[in-house]
Amino acid sequence: MDNLKIVAFDVFGTVVDWYGSVSREIASVAPQIDADEFTLAWRGGYAPAMQKVASGELGWTLIDDLHRMILDELLDRFGVDGLDEAQTVHLNRVWHRLGPWPDSVEGLARLKTRYTICTLSNGNMGLLADMAKRAGLPWDCILSAEVFRKYKPDPATYLGVAKTFDVAPEEVMLAAAHHDDLEAARRCGLKTAFIERPMEFGPNRGNDISPRPGNDLHCRDILDLAERLSC
Amino acid sequence: MDNLKIVAFDVFGTVVDWYGSVSREIASVAPQIDADEFTLAWRGGYAPAMQKVASGELGWTLIDDLHRMILDELLDRFGVDGLDEAQTVHLNRVWHRLGPWPDSVEGLARLKTRYTICTLSNGNMGLLADMAKRAGLPWDCILSAEVFRKYKPDPATYLGVAKTFDVAPEEVMLAAAHHDDLEAARRCGLKTAFIERPMEFGPNRGNDISPRPGNDLHCRDILDLAERLSC
Repeated sequence: MDNLKIVAFDVFGTVVDWYGSVSREIASVAPQIDADEFTLAWRGGYAPAMQKVASGELGWTLIDDLHRMILDELLDRFGVDGLDEAQTVHLNRVWHRLGPWPDSVEGLARLKTRYTICTLSNGNMGLLADMAKRAGLPWDCILSAEVFRKYKPDPATYLGVAKTFDVAPEEVMLAAAHHDDLEAARRCGLKTAFIERPMEFGPNRGNDISPRPGNDLHCRDILDLAERLSC
Repeated sequence: MDNLKIVAFDVFGTVVDWYGSVSREIASVAPQIDADEFTLAWRGGYAPAMQKVASGELGWTLIDDLHRMILDELLDRFGVDGLDEAQTVHLNRVWHRLGPWPDSVEGLARLKTRYTICTLSNGNMGLLADMAKRAGLPWDCILSAEVFRKYKPDPATYLGVAKTFDVAPEEVMLAAAHHDDLEAARRCGLKTAFIERPMEFGPNRGNDISPRPGNDLHCRDILDLAERLSC
């Protein structure tokens, strides 16, 4: 790890608990529906929506707008009809208000003492900045698919981090709770750290946190990553 | 100021003292030349170089690379020939190592308690992130011409800040030590605060810090801006 300079983080699921934050807010706004099911459907709509952008079916669209497209469809499908436009806009921005996992803020602060820490998320810049301010995530720099105009797993995003800081790909590590993200980063020459998030999809649903060969590090959480990087 | 949400800062000259930082480093690296003259020439080459990008004569080029083009020419013109490539790269990155004015860090920290504070600089993202980390500038978000692929004073930069945070232009304030930057921001509907930096071009050279009509605020420094915005 001698030449490591930048640690870039996936955000949704890796640094913040989208399931917990979104499902609590859904339960409070629309107590009559199944918040668990709604939350998973909202998150589940995200990859296909980004795929439409990647394939060119949809022009470049920010995650805020993709979230809104999915939300409108789900409110209809779940029969939620009591929200006016301002309330819908507010609900859509729940993704700006996701709370951190218990280890995230301290783990990032420790890593920051030795490395440049940044986001590499498909979330838009405004969303990531709002979230960081609210949750106290001490990023040195917020980087997003929005800057590179490509969504992960496009190589332009991983290589874009290295290019932004004018370093070689192997001087950058991606930390993420998702194996496909890490695999794509590795193919670009980045170092990788898997972060275990067994509860990403809620407390009652399993999530594969088994080690996979190829990752440079397999960490229990972000504090463990800081420990392993001697921070 | 009731609807103000975002305070965006010009950086070179407004938040950091480029003249002092660059001239000290030049004096140390090449004591035989006139550091004052070299520093002003280096900074002076910046606007014409950006103009070449704006006019299309040069494709999109980061400030790091523009700084290097100017530096190579100046090293030749001033007859500095003792630097190898690694030393020249390091010298060029002096712009990543600019020090803050004495009021900057505390002033920004105070503003951050109430507003989202970000950069709006023609400096590239990596440069601004390195500078912030080294100087302790507590940005909520680093925004740069690099993100918008236009240099200030292009309207896409000022309006880009509002768009990034999904707010109206009048909910954004630009704080800068340069009247032309503020005028361009005002034409886009942003609020503006002039920050006095009488020593921007060195201790022995005057700088126009007289109030101009049209700015919402005229401030002695960033602490004064915080005070005026009740932070």
